Order: sequence, then structure tokens, then C-alpha cells
Amino acid sequence: MQRIYLDNAATTPVCNEVVQLMADTLREVYGNPSSIHSEGRKARTVIEQARKTVANYLNCSIGEIFFTSGGTESNNTALRCSVRDLGVKRIITSKIEHHCILHTLGSLEKENAITVEYVQLQASGETDYEHLRSLLEQGDEKTLVSIMHSNNEIGVINNIQKIADLCEEAGAFFHTDTVQTIGFRPFDLNKTKVSFLSGSAHKFYGPKGVGFLYINGNQKINPLLEGGSQERNMRAGTENIYGIAGLAKALELANEEMKERIQQLANLKNHFIDKVKSIPGVSFNGLESQEQMEKVLSINFPASDKSDLLLLHLDMAGISASGGSACSSGSDIGSHVMQELSAKPLGKTIRFSFSHKNTIEEIDYVIGKLEELYPQAEVQKEIKITQ
Amino acid sequence: MQRIYLDNAATTPVCNEVVQLMADTLREVYGNPSSIHSEGRKARTVIEQARKTVANYLNCSIGEIFFTSGGTESNNTALRCSVRDLGVKRIITSKIEHHCILHTLGSLEKENAITVEYVQLQASGETDYEHLRSLLEQGDEKTLVSIMHSNNEIGVINNIQKIADLCEEAGAFFHTDTVQTIGFRPFDLNKTKVSFLSGSAHKFYGPKGVGFLYINGNQKINPLLEGGSQERNMRAGTENIYGIAGLAKALELANEEMKERIQQLANLKNHFIDKVKSIPGVSFNGLESQEQMEKVLSINFPASDKSDLLLLHLDMAGISASGGSACSSGSDIGSHVMQELSAKPLGKTIRFSFSHKNTIEEIDYVIGKLEELYPQAEVQKEIKITQ
Repeated sequence: MQRIYLDNAATTPVCNEVVQLMADTLREVYGNPSSIHSEGRKARTVIEQARKTVANYLNCSIGEIFFTSGGTESNNTALRCSVRDLGVKRIITSKIEHHCILHTLGSLEKENAITVEYVQLQASGETDYEHLRSLLEQGDEKTLVSIMHSNNEIGVINNIQKIADLCEEAGAFFHTDTVQTIGFRPFDLNKTKVSFLSGSAHKFYGPKGVGFLYINGNQKINPLLEGGSQERNMRAGTENIYGIAGLAKALELANEEMKERIQQLANLKNHFIDKVKSIPGVSFNGLESQEQMEKVLSINFPASDKSDLLLLHLDMAGISASGGSACSSGSDIGSHVMQELSAKPLGKTIRFSFSHKNTIEEIDYVIGKLEELYPQAEVQKEIKITQ
Repeated sequence: MQRIYLDNAATTPVCNEVVQLMADTLREVYGNPSSIHSEGRKARTVIEQARKTVANYLNCSIGEIFFTSGGTESNNTALRCSVRDLGVKRIITSKIEHHCILHTLGSLEKENAITVEYVQLQASGETDYEHLRSLLEQGDEKTLVSIMHSNNEIGVINNIQKIADLCEEAGAFFHTDTVQTIGFRPFDLNKTKVSFLSGSAHKFYGPKGVGFLYINGNQKINPLLEGGSQERNMRAGTENIYGIAGLAKALELANEEMKERIQQLANLKNHFIDKVKSIPGVSFNGLESQEQMEKVLSINFPASDKSDLLLLHLDMAGISASGGSACSSGSDIGSHVMQELSAKPLGKTIRFSFSHKNTIEEIDYVIGKLEELYPQAEVQKEIKITQ
């Protein structure tokens, strides 16, 4: 059975060109980049070329890019090391950040290292910038703001330029988890002043197990993982050369094709919305924000016995999507986002997340299946009963 | 120019079969292993199969194996988390451990979390077990012993069965960095009672950027990298599926071919020793220990103007090896080992480290080059002068 993969915010298939490059690199570039001999220098060159690609994309210095094992390590490093090394005592974040932010902050709080404050959110899930401003005006402790660029569950995009400006005004550090937006939006860190920014290759058609952390040149932190002097003493451990090469190639492709990819994603999302609206009781999350990711569509389906097993039914029909409410379907698809945003239980929330390789025909097939699962008459009856 | 790679203790080329499997996995297994849909379950299966391979090799439970981004992360996790979560207040180690041990312990000491004590070494570099016993008999603080199985620079193997028994007797935790020995020695953790054990795929012809940590089922620690619930809540971050698959495949091959590989490595090492001995003033490190790694040969060349640039001369002749004294040639080839072991400056120490794919002809070529660099008459003259 042909499968329709609509879980591209959880992870993406790796581009063929990236797989090919990685296989070639695995075969040919095996030296230890710390070695001074020919094999070592060859490996070093691959890494430094990749670093240049990332730095060019972000418009920052090469020396501000550090490769890691992924978004989680990048985020853990930014938070833990800014507390340990920059004297941060207070962190402002939101309740809908990824667990690798919230759990790390929870631990830091338990260790009595910091206090955590939560910025209020607009109804859409977007940051309440005025509340952030007022939080920043209070308190005289060294403060870090950690707010994601786009939420992984509902696709809402925060205005990180505005947040960066507010932080700069207040003299606060700013970390942003850009795992969902790297490769999907242009960045200019010369203009958008952030202290730390995290990316993960497997969200933009690159490999799993590799990511990066941008650290602003003015922020001097020490490594989270200690040992060798790799990554200019910022991240110990022999570098994942082929993974780093794959990350850079995937980013290069994402950057080159950004306009076309976004157009296709927008087409798919708009088509999905148009069609799915005909199912009674359906509502959407995040669509009222100023800007949203084209790849993410979060839908609330009316409560029914069908809803409980909706993901399973879809999976059996060859369709992969994610739960947006309490479920075991992924470390980044917890219920905490919907819990925070919903005043009342919303039935079943499903995140469909698209790839530019999906087609309108695939969306139509999915809509057809959803219509089978929610026949209009039955749903309206159930809505009546639960009212 | 054909190159002769004799730096296999720094990192190894990836087996063709492993590259092929990884490329296939990259292409075909892209789901997020935390997802409940078909693609997710397929990815989960690959990881759990790999975990079984590692657990079988070590003769431990599947639930005791946790995949990481490599040896450095594994070692950092074992040390940091046992201090944080197991109440360890005192760590006994040796001065010739890898920097990812020594630097982490240095930080923990600076944070006033622990005291560090150093076990004495025998002249060969092997652990002085009687001194370890006496250290373990002193003090009533919760103690962890962290001693590597084999030293990466000189190839000396410690008797980890003996160390494990001493630790068990004393009620101390035992962590061993087995990065150099996984795939080169059999393990039976049912017999050798360790608390933590670290491995890294790129040392046994697997990929870089992936490793594992064995955590004894009785030791309950929390993750170093926090976030999602991956690896049964022990290591957050989307799993590096193709890397984990590659690690398991490389380990499987290493295990199957262990006897033949070791025989070939021993042949190469013995041949090298026999031939290189004819260069006046040459001496060896680690050869007097009870047991050594066949792949590692650490040689001291007499001091001369040639010695300073020896690695460079070798590299220009197509030969890759590593410095064993102060040099920039790799995070795991620092000078601290030779500094600790040498009573007097030893000229230039070079580590040649072999692969089972190296040939006797290659060794003969290397010996030829070394003989050119150290013509007998000239060396003897220089030795006279420096005496």
C-alpha cells in the first residue's frame, strides 16, 4: 500500500542528493578531523565547508556555528551553559516550548539555579509581546528569554525580530529554538540579534543525529559535553563528518528551493483547510496568528468514539499524522501545547504536517478518509448529544 | 599516491557493508521512532534490533543499553549523572584517562561536587591494582571508580575483571571507558560487574556520531540531555536511526571476525616491532603490561631535528600516524599520557595504530621510510652528542 506521510514536522525523509553525499562521505572521508595528517585535513575541510554554508544562510560568522548531535543538545547547551557561564538567574519562556526547553528549565529550577517566568500567549498561541516587554522591565537579575520561532504542534510563528529587539533594549540574552523554521524561512542574524539559535538537520530533509547551535560571538560559554578540543573547544567528541556534510547539503537545497517549497506547502495546506471544513465540528489551531508555518495544520476533530482511534484509523488507511493531544506519538507532540491553549477539551487534535513532495491528490485521499470516518449526519448527532 | 593509514585508534574507515546498510536505512527508514504510525514503528524496530545486538555482545539486558552521540557523551553522562543522581562524592581515576574523563572530573571538582583521587600506575601504564584496593579501603564517601579498559595512546589493557571485583567488594560504582576495546575483545557483563560502560562506533569500523552507554539495571540515573522521552527517558533527542543501525552492523562484523582480525593485528604489530628495533635509540611504550591491544604500537624515537617533524615527514610519504606527545593531532592523542608515564623526555613519541586491513607490505614500506629518516650512523652520532 502506498503511504501518505503527513508527519513532516516530526521528521522528514532525507533528500536523495543528501543520502548520496552522505554515503560518499562515509566511504571516502574517514579521517579524524583533529588529526594533522592528510585524512584528518580532508575531514576538517568537509566540516569547515559545511560551517560556511550554515553561517552564510544565517548571515553570521563562521566562528559562531557549532555542530551538535541535534536540536535537543543545542537547546540543552544554550540553556545550561548560559546559566552556568553567563550568570543567568532568570529565564522567561512560554508554556508551549518543546520539552527539551521545558524539562531543562524545570531541572535548572529544581537545582535552584534560576527562576522561570512564563510569558502570556495570544489566543492563537503567538507570544504576547506586550507582556514580554513588561516582564523584561521587571527584575534586575540577569535574564535570558527562550522563545521558539515556530511552534511544532500548531505552526504559529513568533516575531523573533520583535523579541530580539525587546531583549536588546532590556539587556537580556535571547535564545530561540528555530528547529521548525531553519530551511523554511530566511534568517539574517546581523539584523536579528539573538544570543543563541538552534537547528536540527532532520527537520529540513537532512539526517537525524546532527544539528547546530549558533552562539553569538559576544557570548562566551564553555562546553556542555567536555573532553577533546573539537569545535574550537565548544563541543567535545569526534565530529559526525558525513552527518555534518548532509546537514549542509540539505540546508543548501532548502535555501535554493525555499520559495517553491513554501508555495507548494501553502497550496497543500489551503486545499486541506478548504476541504476539511465541510466536516461538521472541525476547528483549527493557530490560524489566527500573524504568520504561520505552511507545513503545519493542527485540526480539532469533534469528540466521538472514532476520535479516540483516529490516528490508528488513518494509519491503517496508509496515512501518517500525529496526535496533538495526550498521546505517545512522539517526543515533540506532547499534549502540553493544546492543554495550555484550550479553554475546554477539544475532542481529538491531529497535526498534519506537509512536505513539498506531497500532492493535492494525496490530500484529497486523506480528506476522503476523514469524511468516511466522520459522516456528516453521525457527527452532527454526536455533537448534539455532547452539548 | 597510495596512502597507508596507521591511525586506527583515532578513528577507523567505515566497513563497506556498514556504509551500504546506512545508505539504505537513510533512504528507507525515515520515520520518527517515537511516532506510533507505520513509519515510526519501522524506525523503532531498527533501533530495538540494534540494541539487541549490543546487549547480546555484552551479555546484558536490552534495557541496559542506551544509544548516544558517541563515547564523549557516554562518558560525560556516566560521570555527571552518577554524581548528580547516585550521590557519588569521590571519584578514583587515573591520570592517563581520555580527556573526556579528566576534563569532566576537573569541572565536577571545581564545582565542589566531588573529590578526585588518582590511582598509581605500574611502569607499563597498567593500573596498580593494590593501590586501587588501598584507596577503596579508605574513605567512607560514596565512590565511583572510572578506569579505562585500554589506553588509547599506549594500548595497555587494564584487567577490568579485577577492578570490577575490587569495586564490588568495596561497594563502589565502576565506570569503564571501553571505547578502544569494544569490538576487539569479548565482554560478559554478567560476570564482569560494571555500573557503566561506554562505546563508540567509529573505533570499530562503524560511523562517527553514534555510541552507547551501558547502565547497569540497578543504577537509576536521569538523563544528561533532557527533553523527549527517547531511550526510555534516558537520552532525549530524535534517534540517529541509520547511525545506530551502522553501529550494530559494525559490532556484529567485529564480533564475527574478532579472532581473525586480532591475529592479523598481532602479526602487523609484531612485524613492526621486529623491524623498527634496528633503528638505534628506539624504545616502546606499554609493552610490559600483562595484556595490550594488538592494534596500538607506541614508539619513542630518539630526539633529533628529524623527530620534530616526523609526523609531517611520514604524512608526505603517504603514511598517517599520530603524535603521542604534545601535539595538535587529535583530541584523544594529548601529551598527558606520555607526560605521566615518562621520567625523562623521550624524544618523539609516535603512535602507529593498525587495522586488520593493513598489510605486511605496508608495514615494510613504513619501516623503509623510518630508516631513511633515521640513518643508523647519523642517529648514533646524535645520541652521542645528547648524552
